[in-house]
Amino acid sequence: MAERIGIIMNGVTGRMGLNQHLVRSILQLRAEGGVLLSDGRRLMPDPILVGRNPQKLEAISRQHGGLRWSTDLDACLANPEDAIYFDSGLTGMRETGVLRAIEHGKHVYCEKPLSTTADSAARLAAAADAAEVRHGVVQDKLFLPGIRKLRRLVNSGYFGRILSIRGEFGYWVFEGDWGLPAQRPSWNYRKEEDGGIILDMFAHWRYVLDHTFAPVEAVSCLGATHIPTRVDEAGKTYDCTADDAAYGTFLLKGGIIAQFNSSWTTRVYRDELLTIHVDGTEASAIAGLRECRVQHRVNTPRPVWNPDIANPISFRDSWTDVPDNMEFGNAFKVQWEMYLKAVAEGKPFPHDFWDGARGVQLAELALQSWEEKRWMQVPPIAPIKAAH
Amino acid sequence: MAERIGIIMNGVTGRMGLNQHLVRSILQLRAEGGVLLSDGRRLMPDPILVGRNPQKLEAISRQHGGLRWSTDLDACLANPEDAIYFDSGLTGMRETGVLRAIEHGKHVYCEKPLSTTADSAARLAAAADAAEVRHGVVQDKLFLPGIRKLRRLVNSGYFGRILSIRGEFGYWVFEGDWGLPAQRPSWNYRKEEDGGIILDMFAHWRYVLDHTFAPVEAVSCLGATHIPTRVDEAGKTYDCTADDAAYGTFLLKGGIIAQFNSSWTTRVYRDELLTIHVDGTEASAIAGLRECRVQHRVNTPRPVWNPDIANPISFRDSWTDVPDNMEFGNAFKVQWEMYLKAVAEGKPFPHDFWDGARGVQLAELALQSWEEKRWMQVPPIAPIKAAH
Amino acid sequence: MAERIGIIMNGVTGRMGLNQHLVRSILQLRAEGGVLLSDGRRLMPDPILVGRNPQKLEAISRQHGGLRWSTDLDACLANPEDAIYFDSGLTGMRETGVLRAIEHGKHVYCEKPLSTTADSAARLAAAADAAEVRHGVVQDKLFLPGIRKLRRLVNSGYFGRILSIRGEFGYWVFEGDWGLPAQRPSWNYRKEEDGGIILDMFAHWRYVLDHTFAPVEAVSCLGATHIPTRVDEAGKTYDCTADDAAYGTFLLKGGIIAQFNSSWTTRVYRDELLTIHVDGTEASAIAGLRECRVQHRVNTPRPVWNPDIANPISFRDSWTDVPDNMEFGNAFKVQWEMYLKAVAEGKPFPHDFWDGARGVQLAELALQSWEEKRWMQVPPIAPIKAAH
Amino acid sequence: MAERIGIIMNGVTGRMGLNQHLVRSILQLRAEGGVLLSDGRRLMPDPILVGRNPQKLEAISRQHGGLRWSTDLDACLANPEDAIYFDSGLTGMRETGVLRAIEHGKHVYCEKPLSTTADSAARLAAAADAAEVRHGVVQDKLFLPGIRKLRRLVNSGYFGRILSIRGEFGYWVFEGDWGLPAQRPSWNYRKEEDGGIILDMFAHWRYVLDHTFAPVEAVSCLGATHIPTRVDEAGKTYDCTADDAAYGTFLLKGGIIAQFNSSWTTRVYRDELLTIHVDGTEASAIAGLRECRVQHRVNTPRPVWNPDIANPISFRDSWTDVPDNMEFGNAFKVQWEMYLKAVAEGKPFPHDFWDGARGVQLAELALQSWEEKRWMQVPPIAPIKAAH
Repeated sequence: MAERIGIIMNGVTGRMGLNQHLVRSILQLRAEGGVLLSDGRRLMPDPILVGRNPQKLEAISRQHGGLRWSTDLDACLANPEDAIYFDSGLTGMRETGVLRAIEHGKHVYCEKPLSTTADSAARLAAAADAAEVRHGVVQDKLFLPGIRKLRRLVNSGYFGRILSIRGEFGYWVFEGDWGLPAQRPSWNYRKEEDGGIILDMFAHWRYVLDHTFAPVEAVSCLGATHIPTRVDEAGKTYDCTADDAAYGTFLLKGGIIAQFNSSWTTRVYRDELLTIHVDGTEASAIAGLRECRVQHRVNTPRPVWNPDIANPISFRDSWTDVPDNMEFGNAFKVQWEMYLKAVAEGKPFPHDFWDGARGVQLAELALQSWEEKRWMQVPPIAPIKAAH
Repeated sequence: MAERIGIIMNGVTGRMGLNQHLVRSILQLRAEGGVLLSDGRRLMPDPILVGRNPQKLEAISRQHGGLRWSTDLDACLANPEDAIYFDSGLTGMRETGVLRAIEHGKHVYCEKPLSTTADSAARLAAAADAAEVRHGVVQDKLFLPGIRKLRRLVNSGYFGRILSIRGEFGYWVFEGDWGLPAQRPSWNYRKEEDGGIILDMFAHWRYVLDHTFAPVEAVSCLGATHIPTRVDEAGKTYDCTADDAAYGTFLLKGGIIAQFNSSWTTRVYRDELLTIHVDGTEASAIAGLRECRVQHRVNTPRPVWNPDIANPISFRDSWTDVPDNMEFGNAFKVQWEMYLKAVAEGKPFPHDFWDGARGVQLAELALQSWEEKRWMQVPPIAPIKAAH
Repeated sequence: MAERIGIIMNGVTGRMGLNQHLVRSILQLRAEGGVLLSDGRRLMPDPILVGRNPQKLEAISRQHGGLRWSTDLDACLANPEDAIYFDSGLTGMRETGVLRAIEHGKHVYCEKPLSTTADSAARLAAAADAAEVRHGVVQDKLFLPGIRKLRRLVNSGYFGRILSIRGEFGYWVFEGDWGLPAQRPSWNYRKEEDGGIILDMFAHWRYVLDHTFAPVEAVSCLGATHIPTRVDEAGKTYDCTADDAAYGTFLLKGGIIAQFNSSWTTRVYRDELLTIHVDGTEASAIAGLRECRVQHRVNTPRPVWNPDIANPISFRDSWTDVPDNMEFGNAFKVQWEMYLKAVAEGKPFPHDFWDGARGVQLAELALQSWEEKRWMQVPPIAPIKAAH
Repeated sequence: MAERIGIIMNGVTGRMGLNQHLVRSILQLRAEGGVLLSDGRRLMPDPILVGRNPQKLEAISRQHGGLRWSTDLDACLANPEDAIYFDSGLTGMRETGVLRAIEHGKHVYCEKPLSTTADSAARLAAAADAAEVRHGVVQDKLFLPGIRKLRRLVNSGYFGRILSIRGEFGYWVFEGDWGLPAQRPSWNYRKEEDGGIILDMFAHWRYVLDHTFAPVEAVSCLGATHIPTRVDEAGKTYDCTADDAAYGTFLLKGGIIAQFNSSWTTRVYRDELLTIHVDGTEASAIAGLRECRVQHRVNTPRPVWNPDIANPISFRDSWTDVPDNMEFGNAFKVQWEMYLKAVAEGKPFPHDFWDGARGVQLAELALQSWEEKRWMQVPPIAPIKAAH
């Protein structure tokens, strides 16, 4: 028989909280008979949905066979039967809720960014450490097939010495006018509502770089608000006060250079919405969210430029697919399984609040670099734990 | 009958001087019956090859039907029958030769970089202006089909307001070991011999940006020597002292951001060795040396990210080719024709020594930005002349 | 001006001697202005054709612009102006001719097999060493693009530790009946005329393995005469007394296993007439005479066998081409250039008579293994010189 | 109405026993209404699952509609209502179980290898003969479409006289490190647990050769443990003590030579995981597990080797597919049908325990040949019964 573990889920009325965390992760783990532990036992997650809107909560509950729900977070935190507090609500509200959960001795797991400032995030990490609860932050990109294949390549020594990394992320977010609604919420474009692509994406770049390649040691960033006005959900034109594109360069430990462009104002001429190109002495790779292709130095062509003829080499054809060779599973679910095992078995969880603080820190320093038009050193925040 | 114009060609024993300037440009213009002037006359270039190695000069002369040649540059400059002095020799020797030519009242045309320092280049520009001779510098990339199509798009207003530009240039230059010779000369990797990719490529980026989009106003650059040792032409291992990659960001007039990576240590997963991606409010383009594709906002897809399925959109398929619609001709020859017409007709030539100085200036400021880890303003050097 | 070197060419009335050695190598080197030496001088080969049939010699001479020719080998050997003796005549006659040339102090270069027995071959090697002349044997397969690319892969460390090598060589040699002439001479199928595929091919396998991977240390071989009677050039049926197929396994230094099938009685379901498949811990390769493809472990698929469905993986599609990245030139000419440089510069030549003796030795031991139905150790013959 | 036949199935908790024998064979035959006998009656198999783990047995039973199950083998054997004993458990346990079944007068059918030694296997065959029960061993490869088409070609006389056979079997079994689990169990790589590719595959090669071409009369084999350490199911590194590759040559009756490479350490550049290439005087074939292509001598190209050009013949294109022309059905089910008919009709079954003993014998002699580095004669074990 599976052992039960209670999870207070705050924020599942949002899109990601509902789809990825509740349905694709927790309910999927329930359907599979729970999480398999190292000793052969099974751990069955038992969620209680928490929020402010009883109608929404009740509807979600009913749709999924009558899950527990409540609008009284304090009562939930006081219940010793539920050991974990999960928060995917608004970032600005996170510190308060999580601190209360820690005070109640709950293990805590959060969406990113962990908080709106690195100081706040570090306070949460220190509080969780002091309370000796297991803490974790969502780092879903690390568990996507493309990034896992990249990590596999790094582990296998395939690249030789890694020289540089180029990241291109983005797509065109419609402005909301001429009859086409925008595909992102308007608060993303307002600084006063914690919007901006730097705050959103640099937390991702931090953990992807730290855990896949090497720790980030310095950052230079130029942000921009390329589109000054947009049309919101209500059809009203508003001023964009937050950055919608960022051109960043990172120095990693060991001299690796990572150049990352992030943009909601670019049209995609790539294989995927995110592509990461890695060059090493022995080989290169281009990874996306799901796919990964490589070119070894023995397969590298030797182009000679001749302005009078069309380029005779079809460059992409000499790259080779890295096959899956395993089932990857949903990225959010995979990390939930890891976290639940860490809680049940009392083992360390590398994607912890300190990592969450590092993500916010990089975003803050990037904004400062943009402001002061210079490189910023990235001071270490506690030692990074090995992820694999 | 075509009118003759004598050209003293210094440096045609080098690969570019011989192939692109002598054979593909001057001799090709001769084969076509000379340059057609605005008044219907034809101008027939008559080159005299100048250099230090009489055997090489004699061999080139004979191979092309007995061209004039000489090892005595002073005598050549003293000959009033030859009106133009062309220099594609070593950059370090350029200032001396060109100044002597200007003193003799010759019109002057040079390969890039115009000189090894912006000061030296500006001195040449001022001297040529003072002598009222026509001066020009090679800017071949501007005359390549891909870049000319980009310019066509800008001129037509196709992009709406241009937001940002991404340039990716480079390929893998083999290290020279394991039985595969390097495809670039070893001096490229030695700072003490004016090597380095910043000095080589930033002059190109300057004129491409200035003349195709908008003047460059600031630069941030991180250089790197990713491969510390290579094997030279004689099979000997040597230390690389110059940069083999540069990660640069430029601010252009009007707030356009241009992010350019230049590298001799990257494996190509692109359509061409150079690609320039332009995003504007109305449309985007991706151009290479020859090809150019566009996506208008009405054709832009609206991707939604779903981590559980493979990306359903083949992004490149929704871009459309910009057809040639004309014969572009060899880029070097096209610029030679422009220059010869400017000389014959006494008209201004936009790709002048001031432009050459601007190219060297950008490389110098990029190196300083790398050194000081901060953004550098780019002070204006004379007004840029409209190119088209 | 190029310096002359005289070459006595014995056996150029044969197909290989004429096409590959005279026309494609020596005459081609003459057309290119001779062999470029390390000090910049050029060495111009000047052949004299020697044989028994004056009509044939005269015809070849005339066809190629009046080359020197003679039927008197002794007189040629006595001429001090010709420094090199080349022999591509019948193997059975080789020892006598080459010994006489060595006595006259000629440098000696021979087709393979160097002789009909390993003892005879070793005698030649010792005699040439004693006379301090430069000696060499043709090892053309080493200079074919496919094998050179394999060597490049080995040099680059691409394979990790090499585990095993599979060679498949052969094609169907028609029997000569039903209106289709055989494409090989009938002596190939008669033991009494030094025929047999083991004598023919094992000399090749020896130098390919020794110089590309590791020295051969043991051999097991099963020969066969699969087709007992054939029809000769004159249309007469004859008994085949020599082996037309051989199934050999070699143990190389370091524990590498090489399994090679050689056959004139197999129909080809391969990319090329010879394919060499190499498996290493990190990667595998499949090379032919010209092409080479690789699969790294990061690209290796993970097949699962399911008898109920057609195999879902197109295995060959996940292998990647190793590009030429250089001009390879005709294999025979490349080795001639190496040999002529070694003679002119007094430098060692790795493909020497000792190598020739090793080739004959392997064939002899393979025949003995077949006879005695057991593995044979391969005793070392002098140290192998590094080829690259 | 169908007549019932009871089958005691021991070992169906294993992967092959469950999927191929129970689900794909016995349950499928039940779904089809039983086996059609020669006299038009139908024979309905009624399995009882036997094993040691009641939970597993109960789960399998329930999943398939409530099959009979038991953990008491003796009680099952004592039940006269169940006429057949099937064993797909561990090889090392086979002799005991099967002998007890024979003592109870059961007909016996087993997975391969029949036993761990040829002597033990022959004892079982003699005991079964003495008890006059019908005995059989699984030889699934014979019933795969590719091999059946090969047999069809042999039967039709298509090959003329068969000269030689080349078998290539294998794929890369991952070592279990760098994040990719191995796709075979670790006991396969431990000699002390009856692992090794020779014990696993040579039983297959024996029956494929004996029944498709001609009896095996001699063997030479070189084994290897190419990968000395691997990582097991629990993530622990272990030493490999069993062979992971074998390079074997067989002499068949009539002088046919069969060369077979078997490997878990090779990367596949073939159409299928197993390919068998047959050359005969009139034609050749290349067969896999499912496909078969042929080339007749009238379609055979006549290649001429020219080192200066790429091979102009696309060899594989001149081979022609052998169409299925019938439904082949699952290989395991087809053999079960044959066996059940043999039991019900009292007719001989060619794939009997003597055949099973022959398979083990060949593996034993191959291991001895490797040890003693010489060819081994294969003494006959009873006469081989015609399979078709």
